[in-house]
Amino acid sequence: MLVIMKRDSSEDDLKGLMRKLSQSGLTGHLSRGVERTVVGVVGQTYPELRDTLELLPGIEDVIPISKPYKLSSREFQPENTVIRVSDVEIGSDKLTIMAGPCAVESETQLLETAKAVSAAGANILRGGAFKPSTSPYSFRGLGKLGLELLAMARSETGLPFVTEVLSAHEVDLVARYADILQVGARNMQNFMLLDEVGKTKMPVMLKRGMSATIQEWLLSAEYILAQGNRQVILCERGIRTFETFTRNTMDISAIPIIKSLTHLPIIGDSSHGTGKWQLVTPLALAAVAAGADGLMIEVHPNPDQALKDGSQSLTFANFERLMQRVTPVAAAVGRKMPREIEEAHAR
Amino acid sequence: MLVIMKRDSSEDDLKGLMRKLSQSGLTGHLSRGVERTVVGVVGQTYPELRDTLELLPGIEDVIPISKPYKLSSREFQPENTVIRVSDVEIGSDKLTIMAGPCAVESETQLLETAKAVSAAGANILRGGAFKPSTSPYSFRGLGKLGLELLAMARSETGLPFVTEVLSAHEVDLVARYADILQVGARNMQNFMLLDEVGKTKMPVMLKRGMSATIQEWLLSAEYILAQGNRQVILCERGIRTFETFTRNTMDISAIPIIKSLTHLPIIGDSSHGTGKWQLVTPLALAAVAAGADGLMIEVHPNPDQALKDGSQSLTFANFERLMQRVTPVAAAVGRKMPREIEEAHAR
Amino acid sequence: MLVIMKRDSSEDDLKGLMRKLSQSGLTGHLSRGVERTVVGVVGQTYPELRDTLELLPGIEDVIPISKPYKLSSREFQPENTVIRVSDVEIGSDKLTIMAGPCAVESETQLLETAKAVSAAGANILRGGAFKPSTSPYSFRGLGKLGLELLAMARSETGLPFVTEVLSAHEVDLVARYADILQVGARNMQNFMLLDEVGKTKMPVMLKRGMSATIQEWLLSAEYILAQGNRQVILCERGIRTFETFTRNTMDISAIPIIKSLTHLPIIGDSSHGTGKWQLVTPLALAAVAAGADGLMIEVHPNPDQALKDGSQSLTFANFERLMQRVTPVAAAVGRKMPREIEEAHAR
Amino acid sequence: MLVIMKRDSSEDDLKGLMRKLSQSGLTGHLSRGVERTVVGVVGQTYPELRDTLELLPGIEDVIPISKPYKLSSREFQPENTVIRVSDVEIGSDKLTIMAGPCAVESETQLLETAKAVSAAGANILRGGAFKPSTSPYSFRGLGKLGLELLAMARSETGLPFVTEVLSAHEVDLVARYADILQVGARNMQNFMLLDEVGKTKMPVMLKRGMSATIQEWLLSAEYILAQGNRQVILCERGIRTFETFTRNTMDISAIPIIKSLTHLPIIGDSSHGTGKWQLVTPLALAAVAAGADGLMIEVHPNPDQALKDGSQSLTFANFERLMQRVTPVAAAVGRKMPREIEEAHAR
Repeated sequence: MLVIMKRDSSEDDLKGLMRKLSQSGLTGHLSRGVERTVVGVVGQTYPELRDTLELLPGIEDVIPISKPYKLSSREFQPENTVIRVSDVEIGSDKLTIMAGPCAVESETQLLETAKAVSAAGANILRGGAFKPSTSPYSFRGLGKLGLELLAMARSETGLPFVTEVLSAHEVDLVARYADILQVGARNMQNFMLLDEVGKTKMPVMLKRGMSATIQEWLLSAEYILAQGNRQVILCERGIRTFETFTRNTMDISAIPIIKSLTHLPIIGDSSHGTGKWQLVTPLALAAVAAGADGLMIEVHPNPDQALKDGSQSLTFANFERLMQRVTPVAAAVGRKMPREIEEAHAR
Repeated sequence: MLVIMKRDSSEDDLKGLMRKLSQSGLTGHLSRGVERTVVGVVGQTYPELRDTLELLPGIEDVIPISKPYKLSSREFQPENTVIRVSDVEIGSDKLTIMAGPCAVESETQLLETAKAVSAAGANILRGGAFKPSTSPYSFRGLGKLGLELLAMARSETGLPFVTEVLSAHEVDLVARYADILQVGARNMQNFMLLDEVGKTKMPVMLKRGMSATIQEWLLSAEYILAQGNRQVILCERGIRTFETFTRNTMDISAIPIIKSLTHLPIIGDSSHGTGKWQLVTPLALAAVAAGADGLMIEVHPNPDQALKDGSQSLTFANFERLMQRVTPVAAAVGRKMPREIEEAHAR
Repeated sequence: MLVIMKRDSSEDDLKGLMRKLSQSGLTGHLSRGVERTVVGVVGQTYPELRDTLELLPGIEDVIPISKPYKLSSREFQPENTVIRVSDVEIGSDKLTIMAGPCAVESETQLLETAKAVSAAGANILRGGAFKPSTSPYSFRGLGKLGLELLAMARSETGLPFVTEVLSAHEVDLVARYADILQVGARNMQNFMLLDEVGKTKMPVMLKRGMSATIQEWLLSAEYILAQGNRQVILCERGIRTFETFTRNTMDISAIPIIKSLTHLPIIGDSSHGTGKWQLVTPLALAAVAAGADGLMIEVHPNPDQALKDGSQSLTFANFERLMQRVTPVAAAVGRKMPREIEEAHAR
Repeated sequence: MLVIMKRDSSEDDLKGLMRKLSQSGLTGHLSRGVERTVVGVVGQTYPELRDTLELLPGIEDVIPISKPYKLSSREFQPENTVIRVSDVEIGSDKLTIMAGPCAVESETQLLETAKAVSAAGANILRGGAFKPSTSPYSFRGLGKLGLELLAMARSETGLPFVTEVLSAHEVDLVARYADILQVGARNMQNFMLLDEVGKTKMPVMLKRGMSATIQEWLLSAEYILAQGNRQVILCERGIRTFETFTRNTMDISAIPIIKSLTHLPIIGDSSHGTGKWQLVTPLALAAVAAGADGLMIEVHPNPDQALKDGSQSLTFANFERLMQRVTPVAAAVGRKMPREIEEAHAR
């Protein structure tokens, strides 16, 4: 942390700063420039210190120079984290393809979809049992029944599944069924929930909040990591901007940024990222080209009858085409598909 | 809901739409224009219907024309909701002034502040016992001890208090102490929490999420109202924009908009709304001038030693000056201060 | 400017930096902390230097510590700039009220409006002769005829007028008629235009770009000031955010920020700032309460027949009510109205 | 255009609307639903009509259902526009690669760069002679000398060039030298400039404004097309969001959206789109994967000595690597590189 003194600050201001630092167990390292006097702060600083110092007399600005996240940083762990879920390796040279319906609606809907996405080459099933909904009058998911159906679909297809957990006191329940716990965008700063999923030591997929900076997102990941749970997967799903043509603006640049700042795997969700099924495939290709470790795609047997998010869901045929189009792009950037499509079709 | 058919849609497309509507228990009212054919949908529609219809062949666009929130709307209840908390009436012609420290730090800090803000004319004490924090390495509040200190400060000063509840399973605990439950910006779409605070039937102050539209905010209020709890207070606390000079951009226009769309009271929080203590008073004046029912202001005995948000906290002297400056502006827009300042000083 | 060296940077990296600085006529002031090594740069730096230094090996970050604008800063000129236009003083303790139609449409429309706003107490007439329009198929203004009508309205009412100039080569023409040249939001970074209006030495009102930071806005003002033209008025007219309920989000906090960073006067335009006539008055009151030096308000004899921006224009009666409501708020913050309303009515 | 009547509107309100429509040469087509009465407007509507109608008594909402842009729409011209510049075809199955320095700085800098990007396979040279600069104290380009150097580089390498024109009165000058005129992001709504570049009938590359919606961008293109100039190229270069890690957020979804709404070619500028050289290549790959017709990339012999935008410029070696990495991604989505790299290297 660096403290910039005002041009007209006095010697007393400087002494006040030094005293404050020393009271906080820190030391100040003085540098008198022609332009300004700068004090480098040495010791274990903390985010609130900045606010405190800014209020002292004679202080122009306080500049943090260490990153506030630690366990998620590349500096802390240079090699990529690879998370094993059944026989899937998330963060390896093979892409992870998560696919399935937005919400679990019925046994038939889920099983049909699970078989179709498996046949097309997906290796993780997705599906919501507990659904966040902007309106209290909308469908909020099948709850426990949804979890049971997901477990049944896993038995039938062999696909492990990821599903969202909405609150801290449901973590135990969801964790008994799921292979990967998902923390949704609206809960990215539900710190109680982050603590609880951290304690499970299970793989957790943390979606970026719709207006979260990359740093805030990594600090939320840090909550999970700080509980001793190193199995964190990040998921870019679009941010809120002024543009209304798309539901969100998918921040493709977040993918290479996350790969450079952290060792954690990152998944691109182009269904939520765009909100329009016609854009799902082009943005999926973009995510893979930019270095994503995998994709999350919403698929539904009849998108026009979906209870949630029909307009961003792919039909089985469109998902198959997406997989066919992703294959050569993956190869072009040195990635493998989860299974060879032929093999998938042979199943 | 209106369905706009494509210019080149066929009669079969139209029949398909009509069949779909009839399956959903709705009827379609046809209007063939020169430019386009439009179908008005009659019956109890729901948000997901739009997604479903958009995917049918021959559909250009689907346009909702009813507002998705009901219980919070002025149409549902034309007269203002006034919420009584002890002898305070929130939403009446008297302003409600909520003031106190961001976080409860100690008995001394809290009591001193409570007395000071009471003397200056505030009529609700604020203070955080459970604190959301972007980083897991930062101060997260005193917890239950904080609630006990707040109750002690209430006994000493007579001020009822508002404090944040962070998760559904802590609602019971916080509700045993607090006069008003606060749902913070990061939890505006924590729907479990909204359900739980709804069930308490206690006054709830719902802060706007940092990237929530006004409609999303009102839908979150609707969650609480739908539990039979009519005591909802809204609080504008700034939204996230591209501007980095302020911590948030306080959306003053939200104040008259909320007053026109809903019957619920609205409070302006210019501490979080700006993030800089120098801006707290000008924006508080602006909020009152624009029609706010009250203010929420962070006050600390020594902002430069605050554990949280020191840079946006006022000293006792600055809070007193704020109250002095608010008084004539309130009068100019036909509002009264909670108590006459003289009376306050005499206490 | 401060250069932060990477944790693992070498002595050669440091030498490289020092050499580069010396080539640029600068000197580096070294400070070796426990955490990091920091180099303070002394001499006449320039914005691009930052990019250059960031690319040198071993550099973690480069931090500018001087503000990039100079002539507009309070440090350069501590006392307020007051701009005289005829008998109006913009930036004094009297508010400046600019009012009139969005676009000049006809002699009758303009004269009627000019008389009505004058009678209600406005002291500057506004009206667009050259209109920017998002679509090429929309009304683009009466051009030179519009300027002539504005001049005629000035003769009839005694009100000086402000009107927009859209391009550098029309500056001469517009300057022959107008009292104040307006640079619109879309042209805030039309640097050629800024140069040209700077050269006129006439009063210029510079609107904030819809996604301009405060710093970028002041740098655009600096273009005008750098031509030796000190008569710059700033105008906050709303910024673009994710919220779609309003046309723009009026950034009321910009008003006290501008007053603290600069000596230039600032006007609040709550017509463009909200885009809805029902919100114009509450936001005008907020702007005055927050410290604005004046208001800009769109008024039209028949908003429902306006060729531009009818939905944000006030009728004569509504403008009169606005003026009546502004008067006590102005008094509450120590400001005078341009003329006593009685006197205005007597004219 | 559809007009939704208020629930409590009267027959007189309806008659007033019909009268207004008929005065405007339009006809209203009435549809009385159970929920609401809706009037479809038939005839040649215009954007301002919406504002006008919204102000009539009894009107709830006015909804435009035609797109406001015409000449740029796929409906107007279903097949792709292909623009020929010398032997380059922009919008064909071959990618167009525009590369070169941000600003022309000297003969040596430009010639070296032109040769290097040509050798690496670029087919258009880019370089700024007139530079927009946020600060008046920064480098603003070599002007006419820059144009002459670009012409010289064209003679030496055979590469046609694109360069920015900053104002309407410089269009003639720049058009005498350039092969493609560039309108920059800050000038996307400089309508005078759009008119002038439209009149040249030369190829024009129109960059998206930093906070322009896709619709506004297409309306700006419409200005150029409306002058009879069909040679418009669009360029996505990042939009302004709350994220500060990158200079802009590159909206990759704009690429497939533009391809679906319009027949015009679209180029991805990942240099401005990210502002960091390390992100330029991943985002270039993403743009190509998402369907871009080409790329625009800043290249400089010594980015650390660049007068502008050094931090987002690639070295020659890094540009060569970018081209090598783009090649297989282009093939994966069915695109060809401008020239075979082998051939390029052989030159």
